[in-house]
Amino acid sequence: MIEIRFPDGAVRSFPKGTTALEIAKSISEGLAKKVLAAKVNGVVIDATRPIEENATLQLLTWDDTEGKQTLWHSSAHLMAEAVESMFPGVKFWVGPAIDHGFYYDMDLGDRKISEEDLQALEKKMNELAKQGNVYIRKAMPKQEAVAYFTEKGDEYKLDLLQNLNDGEITFYTQGNFTDLCRGPHIPNTSFIKAIKLTNIAGAYWKGDEHNKQLTRIYGITFPNQKELDAYLTMLEEAKKRDHRKLGKELSIFTMDDDVGPGLPLWMPNGTIIIEELEKLAKETEEDAGYKRVVTPHIAKESMYLTSGHLPYYADSMFPPMEMDGEKYYLKAMNCPHHHKIYAAEPKSYRDLPYRIAEYGTCYRYEQSGELFGLMRVRCLHMNDAHIYCTKEQFAEEFKAVNNMYLKYFKLFGIDKFVMRLSLHDPAKLGQKYVNEPKLWLETEDMVRKVLQETNTPFIEVPDEAAFYGPKIDVQIWSAIGREFTLATNQVDFNSGRKFSLTYTTANNDTDIPLIIHRAPLGTHERFIGFLLEHYAGKFPVWLAPQQVIILPISDKFAGYANEVALKLKAKRVRVTVDERNEKIGKKIREAEMMRIPYMLIVGEKEMNEQQLSVRRQGVGDTGTVSIDNFVQNIVAEIMERK
Amino acid sequence: MIEIRFPDGAVRSFPKGTTALEIAKSISEGLAKKVLAAKVNGVVIDATRPIEENATLQLLTWDDTEGKQTLWHSSAHLMAEAVESMFPGVKFWVGPAIDHGFYYDMDLGDRKISEEDLQALEKKMNELAKQGNVYIRKAMPKQEAVAYFTEKGDEYKLDLLQNLNDGEITFYTQGNFTDLCRGPHIPNTSFIKAIKLTNIAGAYWKGDEHNKQLTRIYGITFPNQKELDAYLTMLEEAKKRDHRKLGKELSIFTMDDDVGPGLPLWMPNGTIIIEELEKLAKETEEDAGYKRVVTPHIAKESMYLTSGHLPYYADSMFPPMEMDGEKYYLKAMNCPHHHKIYAAEPKSYRDLPYRIAEYGTCYRYEQSGELFGLMRVRCLHMNDAHIYCTKEQFAEEFKAVNNMYLKYFKLFGIDKFVMRLSLHDPAKLGQKYVNEPKLWLETEDMVRKVLQETNTPFIEVPDEAAFYGPKIDVQIWSAIGREFTLATNQVDFNSGRKFSLTYTTANNDTDIPLIIHRAPLGTHERFIGFLLEHYAGKFPVWLAPQQVIILPISDKFAGYANEVALKLKAKRVRVTVDERNEKIGKKIREAEMMRIPYMLIVGEKEMNEQQLSVRRQGVGDTGTVSIDNFVQNIVAEIMERK
Repeated sequence: MIEIRFPDGAVRSFPKGTTALEIAKSISEGLAKKVLAAKVNGVVIDATRPIEENATLQLLTWDDTEGKQTLWHSSAHLMAEAVESMFPGVKFWVGPAIDHGFYYDMDLGDRKISEEDLQALEKKMNELAKQGNVYIRKAMPKQEAVAYFTEKGDEYKLDLLQNLNDGEITFYTQGNFTDLCRGPHIPNTSFIKAIKLTNIAGAYWKGDEHNKQLTRIYGITFPNQKELDAYLTMLEEAKKRDHRKLGKELSIFTMDDDVGPGLPLWMPNGTIIIEELEKLAKETEEDAGYKRVVTPHIAKESMYLTSGHLPYYADSMFPPMEMDGEKYYLKAMNCPHHHKIYAAEPKSYRDLPYRIAEYGTCYRYEQSGELFGLMRVRCLHMNDAHIYCTKEQFAEEFKAVNNMYLKYFKLFGIDKFVMRLSLHDPAKLGQKYVNEPKLWLETEDMVRKVLQETNTPFIEVPDEAAFYGPKIDVQIWSAIGREFTLATNQVDFNSGRKFSLTYTTANNDTDIPLIIHRAPLGTHERFIGFLLEHYAGKFPVWLAPQQVIILPISDKFAGYANEVALKLKAKRVRVTVDERNEKIGKKIREAEMMRIPYMLIVGEKEMNEQQLSVRRQGVGDTGTVSIDNFVQNIVAEIMERK
Repeated sequence: MIEIRFPDGAVRSFPKGTTALEIAKSISEGLAKKVLAAKVNGVVIDATRPIEENATLQLLTWDDTEGKQTLWHSSAHLMAEAVESMFPGVKFWVGPAIDHGFYYDMDLGDRKISEEDLQALEKKMNELAKQGNVYIRKAMPKQEAVAYFTEKGDEYKLDLLQNLNDGEITFYTQGNFTDLCRGPHIPNTSFIKAIKLTNIAGAYWKGDEHNKQLTRIYGITFPNQKELDAYLTMLEEAKKRDHRKLGKELSIFTMDDDVGPGLPLWMPNGTIIIEELEKLAKETEEDAGYKRVVTPHIAKESMYLTSGHLPYYADSMFPPMEMDGEKYYLKAMNCPHHHKIYAAEPKSYRDLPYRIAEYGTCYRYEQSGELFGLMRVRCLHMNDAHIYCTKEQFAEEFKAVNNMYLKYFKLFGIDKFVMRLSLHDPAKLGQKYVNEPKLWLETEDMVRKVLQETNTPFIEVPDEAAFYGPKIDVQIWSAIGREFTLATNQVDFNSGRKFSLTYTTANNDTDIPLIIHRAPLGTHERFIGFLLEHYAGKFPVWLAPQQVIILPISDKFAGYANEVALKLKAKRVRVTVDERNEKIGKKIREAEMMRIPYMLIVGEKEMNEQQLSVRRQGVGDTGTVSIDNFVQNIVAEIMERK
């Protein structure tokens, strides 16, 4: 018998050689139908492999990232089987799972795959999936694998084999398809219930443009049709809400060849959103006891040698400027400059926690092919701050940071989010991780407790912490269910020492502060890109570049319209008057297109009664109110950021 | 007889060969006593030189920059005479007038000048000045001058002669001193009434460190003792108000070797001032119809080739970063980025004036030896904006800009200021100046009219305009009478064409907008440096980094102090509580040192009566008020920026 320990701490005995799938069945048939793979002692394997010794076990389903990845990788094999049946002689390169689905690269010789072929392939995959063919794992010595592919004349798989260690090689077979593969795979093809092949693309072998171009087919699969339908709807909606499209339509930002790729210029409408977000951040941070600083965008090489960004991070930084015999770099992060401000005056325990914030603009080098609208840029306006505190203050400070995130999520209607807590691996202290075993455990524990106490959804990821401390990546989902990585939140044991940051303790000793790096609103670039999709351009009134437009029915009422506008402007409401000599219907249509929250239509009746006919964007006519009432209501709506 | 035309347009006849001094005497003896030099047909000459033909004439006095410069240059000659009498055999290099006074560089052989020598020199100069020795001009052929200095063995003056054109050379003699000199000079030494030698320094011959080190003596002179006394008081006060000293004492900014010279880091106190200034600018600009933009800090080389900054302005820019086979530059000005925003969407006459503003951060290369605190830096946060308008809109727009300046001057208590209007020279159209003769005259005329209509003090400077239009440099004087160049205001006919900026006119034609560059608050760096001196660190409440400090007499009243603080914080008043266990006298002294405008002292009586004892910085106790009254008053004081 062996002992199996479950994630909730429970331990049960099973006969040696039991599989994870059998264990799942012993719990419930329903559960077994969901198990896609198993994590045994931290390693993901087939749920159908026998467990030979005492182990920890996590059953992986569609709810787990690794569960999804296993289904998608198995789907790539299923697609390959379908391709081989339709295009005999095809040779395959690699077929990994990706963030959303999978692809397989293949050499079809002179043949081309058409859109119609994709549909036929989908049909074939559905047939094969229904057969419930089992994924069978087979291990063999490397020479045997080489002999197999040499005989088959498959130069691609032979190339892959070359880069593998000598020793045992594994193959997986389902139905009529066999592939060199490390696995793991799902138990059988019937777990794949809904299939969509999404795209065909060319891809150079090994990503090198001097090599042959292979055909890449992208697809995605789901454990039920409903999720596939929802995914396709989301894609459709995401296309309509594309931040690049909306960014242009609503005059939010522009790009220019003479400025350079990845460097958005924020037009007046986008700048209003930037300034409202900064106002929000500044108020929130002021209330939370932060002070603000302003630092230059450059620093000498010596700064980044001290911080350790050079030479390790050099590829992500802009190239240096050589001046006065020194190298200057554009900053890729604000921390070193903030550390210098901390260090500028001596600190005592009375000065801690010392919280300094800056909407600092950083520059990071991204390959031009990686740039994408506001999502991947080279210029980042970051909602940055650093908190310098004692160990005793850490839990409280971290909690306050977490609460700030939760407050923002609520304000922006972000209902789905997950904190991804990356932890250290004790075996790698002193190498991958700074050698502070006690601090690691203490801070990880404090972070975990804060997340638990505040009911913040989170997952733990071992061995993915930063060098200098545990790290939290914040994942959020937009209104249409698309995932974004918003920000990173880090604990830092190390920079204090590197920059000789100290404080005098109450006992007149000298100690080094802990540092929290945090940026709840991420960067303007990514966050505004997210908000464009999230709101489909229909910003809440406080964020809307233009809050009110007044539409006089004819010239005769332009005077009255301007009077009303003046009253609103006096309260700093963003209002314009559409005085053009156009039909009211056209004016309304255009204002709707510009997603202006309030349209005030004024004609004879309104002017005589000093009233306004209010039309709400996307809603329609909402009746007539007095000027004063309208002003009062909209000012309250803006103040409260409803 | 010749005809002399005066600046007011009056024309009078004088005998041929009359001197400016004689003309002055013909007006009044009092005037003649003030005439230091004369501007005849635009050229500054000795007031004692005969005028041989019809001419325009401006009599230059102490009120004119050229008058001051003439007195100071003559004072350098006077100092040289005194030096020669005390240190026979001394050889002189050059002795120019500078912004404030003059210096003379000299070779004293092995002798050194001491502080006592300076006093003796001053005494000697006073003696010589009283003698009223006339400055006598003598012209001779260059060979004669060479022969003279060869005989004298004066290698310095021979070196100067080498670089002069062949032809007539002039000498000036007063008393026992003769010098090679282009002039002009004052009529005689008695015009110099008050003398101060301020400094002795070393100076390499021709500024080259491989050359011999000469002795440089600095001095300044005045037409009366009162002005000298005021100047010395101002220097004394300026030392106390030195923005570098106050900047450190009040924790406004810091510099760091790893960041680099000329790159201030703004600490929390300095950042508060920055944010208050930006708030002021944003409100003011919003009310004036400006929109805001945000642009990157870099652009490709092509941008600056288009604008014409490259290659001509390259020395003032940071060196390029080479990336993706392109050169990127840190922006040294915001205009090109703003032009790109103008160009991003088609414009019609309805969109003009199009005013876009940005507190844009620019980077300019200054020699490290030229850097000085916040006054000469490499990083500039600029109160920038560009106005794109039609020719018809120009006067109105320029007037609005001018009014914004005047409004700011009033707000900051800047009583003395002058706009220096630089005009084109019609003879240089198409070379030094863009070839738009009509536009030059029109805009210069409109600018002049606006300055006249608004009673703005201004002077006109011919042939100093920018290439692309007339330019206004704004000179302001701090509370202690020191002069600062705050900002430059420019009209631009040229960039519109260079960047292909257009708009559709009401007649459906295409035209190019005029552009106004303006930055009334200059840069944060220079303006905050100025304000530190202007206010001696005692900022008005709305600008003060810390507005209120509450000083409990003992621990017992800390609770009450914090209650009051909460009420103030709720209104976003910047308040702290000094809870340290220190004597109240010490707490007050330290708060006074930090120039905190309001100190609220709370003890038994105050707590029981829910009152506050109010102490005003630099004033002292101002009595007791209720909490509500204090909150109300200070909120009003801040809102109104009193």
